[in-house]
Amino acid sequence: MTISPLALPFPELPAVAGVRIGIATAGYKAWTRADVLLVELARGTSVAGVTTRSRCPSPEVELCRARLSGGRARALVVNAGNSNAFTGEAGRAAALAQGAEVARLLGCGEGEVFQASTGVIGVPLPAEKALAGARAAHGALGEADMAAATAAIGTTDTFAKAAVSYAMIGGERTALVGIIKGSGMIAPDMATMLGFIFTDAAVAPELLQDMLAAANKQSFSCITVDGDTSTSDTVLAFATGSGGGAALSGWDSPGAQAFSAALGDLCGQLARLVVRDGEGSSKLIEVRVAGAVDEASAHKVAMSIANSPLVKTAIAGGDANWGRVVMAVGKAGEPAERDLLAIRFGEVLVAADGAAVPGYDEAPVAAHLAGDEVLISVDLGLGQGQAKVWTCDLTHGYISINADYRS
Amino acid sequence: MTISPLALPFPELPAVAGVRIGIATAGYKAWTRADVLLVELARGTSVAGVTTRSRCPSPEVELCRARLSGGRARALVVNAGNSNAFTGEAGRAAALAQGAEVARLLGCGEGEVFQASTGVIGVPLPAEKALAGARAAHGALGEADMAAATAAIGTTDTFAKAAVSYAMIGGERTALVGIIKGSGMIAPDMATMLGFIFTDAAVAPELLQDMLAAANKQSFSCITVDGDTSTSDTVLAFATGSGGGAALSGWDSPGAQAFSAALGDLCGQLARLVVRDGEGSSKLIEVRVAGAVDEASAHKVAMSIANSPLVKTAIAGGDANWGRVVMAVGKAGEPAERDLLAIRFGEVLVAADGAAVPGYDEAPVAAHLAGDEVLISVDLGLGQGQAKVWTCDLTHGYISINADYRS
Repeated sequence: MTISPLALPFPELPAVAGVRIGIATAGYKAWTRADVLLVELARGTSVAGVTTRSRCPSPEVELCRARLSGGRARALVVNAGNSNAFTGEAGRAAALAQGAEVARLLGCGEGEVFQASTGVIGVPLPAEKALAGARAAHGALGEADMAAATAAIGTTDTFAKAAVSYAMIGGERTALVGIIKGSGMIAPDMATMLGFIFTDAAVAPELLQDMLAAANKQSFSCITVDGDTSTSDTVLAFATGSGGGAALSGWDSPGAQAFSAALGDLCGQLARLVVRDGEGSSKLIEVRVAGAVDEASAHKVAMSIANSPLVKTAIAGGDANWGRVVMAVGKAGEPAERDLLAIRFGEVLVAADGAAVPGYDEAPVAAHLAGDEVLISVDLGLGQGQAKVWTCDLTHGYISINADYRS
Repeated sequence: MTISPLALPFPELPAVAGVRIGIATAGYKAWTRADVLLVELARGTSVAGVTTRSRCPSPEVELCRARLSGGRARALVVNAGNSNAFTGEAGRAAALAQGAEVARLLGCGEGEVFQASTGVIGVPLPAEKALAGARAAHGALGEADMAAATAAIGTTDTFAKAAVSYAMIGGERTALVGIIKGSGMIAPDMATMLGFIFTDAAVAPELLQDMLAAANKQSFSCITVDGDTSTSDTVLAFATGSGGGAALSGWDSPGAQAFSAALGDLCGQLARLVVRDGEGSSKLIEVRVAGAVDEASAHKVAMSIANSPLVKTAIAGGDANWGRVVMAVGKAGEPAERDLLAIRFGEVLVAADGAAVPGYDEAPVAAHLAGDEVLISVDLGLGQGQAKVWTCDLTHGYISINADYRS
C-alpha cells in the first residue's frame, strides 16, 4: 500500500493519565500485525459518543449507543479487519461475548465496555479469536503507546493518524489526544469512522456529549471521501478525570469553553487527517460556501460540490473547470441564483454575474491547482449561511483500491 | 475514443413524415465533423418537453421552457461542443440570435424554434459560427438522415444512440423515433441529457406533455452515470401530425394508451442507451428495489445503490460485495430495517435476515457478475413500494476521461 502523498508525520503525543493501552494479534485476517486494541480507563471515566446514522449499523454500534446512556467507561476494545456489520445473531453474540470477557478481566460492568470493529462487512466476528485477542491485549496492558494503538485499528489506512490539542483549565494545561482510522466509505452522517479521544480532564458525561456533538457538526460531519456512509462509524471521547484538574460540570464551569474549543480543534484535525488518507487521494480540497439562505443550505451545497465525481476528477487533473462547480451548485436542490454566483479557486475570482470574469487569467489558478491543497469558494449571494467541508480528489487510485479490495 | 463495450448497433429507423434534417459544421471545436443539427418540422407540429431541474440552467433550457407553453414547433436546432451554460448576457444573446435566424429562414415565429446546446460549460456560444452553422444546415435540409443527426449532436458519446417503437392508432402503425446523446454528467433530475423524439402521429400538445412527463418518470429519471446533473438536460418530443392518422386529443382518444405505452417504451430504450455509453462503463447495472414504504422511497434507495462509488467499483471488479449494497441501503435516509433486508445478485439470494444466507455459494453469483449486464435486487420487506433504475460500473475509464476532458 503506497502511503498517501498527503500524509502527515505522526505527532508527539503527551501521556494521558488514567489510560493504559494493550494490543494483540487476534488474526482476523491472514496477517501478523496487531488487530485488537484494548484501552483500560480509570474508574469514573466519562464517555460521550456519536455513531453512524446508517439504517444498517453493526452490533458494536448498537452496543455503544445503548451503553452511552450510562455515561461511564472502563474500557475500549477495537477489532480491525472485520466490521462485524450485517452478521445477524452470530455477529451480535460474538460482540456481546467479547464485551463480557473484557468486563470480567477488568472487574467492571458490561455497560462500561465500549466496542468498535472495522473491516469487511458480512462476516461474523470469529468469537474465539475475539476472546483470545482481548485476553492477550489485557495481558499486555501498559506495554503499548498511542502510536501502536493507532496502528492496531487501521485497515486500508496508509498512515497512522493522530492529533493533540490543549485547553487551559484553572491555570493548568490539559491535553486532549485523539486517534482515528478510515480512508474509504467516508461520508459520516453526523457521525464518523472510528475515532477515539482521550483526556485526563474531569468532565461530566452530559457536558462531554454536548461538546462532542457540537464539535462533530463542524468536523466529522463536514468531510467526505466518496459519499458512502459506513455501517460502523463511531467516535468516542473519554475523560478519565485522572489529571487532577478542576471538574467541568457544565458550560459555565471555568475552563469549559476552553475545553470545548480544544475538543473542536482536535476533531477538526482528526477529520482532515481522514481526508488526507482518502482512498487514492492526491489533493486535499476545502470547499467554502457563503451567502446561502442558512447554514444547513450552505452545508448541502458544499457537500454537493465535495461529492461531485466531475469536480473531484477535474481537481485530480489540475483542471480549473469551474463549470463543474456551477453544475454541482445547480444540482444541490438548494436555493441558488445562477446570476448571483461567485466562484473562486484559491484567492482568484473566476466566475461571477452568470459568466466567467472578464479577462479571466487561468495562470494563477493553474498554479494554485498544482499544489496539494486546493480551495474552492462559492458565494451564493442570497443570505448569511456559511459552511466549510473537506474532501479529496478522485483518482485512478480509488478505482484500483475498490475494484479489488473486499471492504 | 474507445467505443463502449456495451454499445448496441444503430437501429434501422423508419422515415417520419413531416421531418426534414440538415446538418453542418459550425466549428465549435477544432474539428471537421458536423456539430449543428437543424430539423424542420411540419406546420402544426405538437411539442412537449422536460428539462433539467438544475438551478443553473443554460439559456437554451430557459428558452425551451418559455416556448413549450405555446405547444407548437417548426424547428429544432442543436449545437454540439459548447453547452452555452453559465455564459451570461453574451451566451443568451447568441442563443436568441440563432433562434431568430432559424425563424427567419423557415418563416416561422421564434416561439416555434426549440434549441439545445451541449459541451463545455462557461464559454459563450460564438454567435457568428452559430448563425453560419444554422444557415448551412438550412441549405442542406433533406440531405441528412437520423443517423447523421445523431452523430451531429454527440460529444463524449462513443456510439450513436437511437431507438424506435410503434403504436397502433386506428388500425394504423405509427412510428416513434428517438435519438439521444450523453455519457457523463448524467443524473437527470426529472429530466435528462439531450434527447429528441419524432413521430408523425397527431397528438395534442397538452396530451403529449402528460405522456412525456409520465414516460420520463420511469426512464430518464431512473438512470445515473455519476450522480452529476447537467445544466443542459433537455428532452423534446415532436408530433408532426403528417402521418395522416387519427388525432389524439386526450387520454380517451382511441390509440392514446397505445401511443403512451410506445412512448414509454422508447424513452426506456433511450435512457438505457445513455447508461450503455456511460463514461468508462463496462457493465450495465439494473437495480431493483421492492418492499419499500412507497414508490418514492424505493426510488431513493435504488438511486443510493446506483450512485454508490463503492458498489460501482465492486461491480467493475466482478466482486459480489453485497456488504456495500447493505451500506448503500443504510445511508439512503429512507425507512429500512437491517434484519428484514433481502439482497440478490442476478437470481441468487445472497443475504437475508441480517446476515449472509446459510451455505452461501459465491460461484453462480461470480458467473452472473462476469457478464456485461448485472442485476442487483433488494427487498426491504416493509411495504409495496417498487422502483427500477439503471446505472453503469465505475472504472479507470471514467477517471481517465474526466481528469483530462474539459466538459
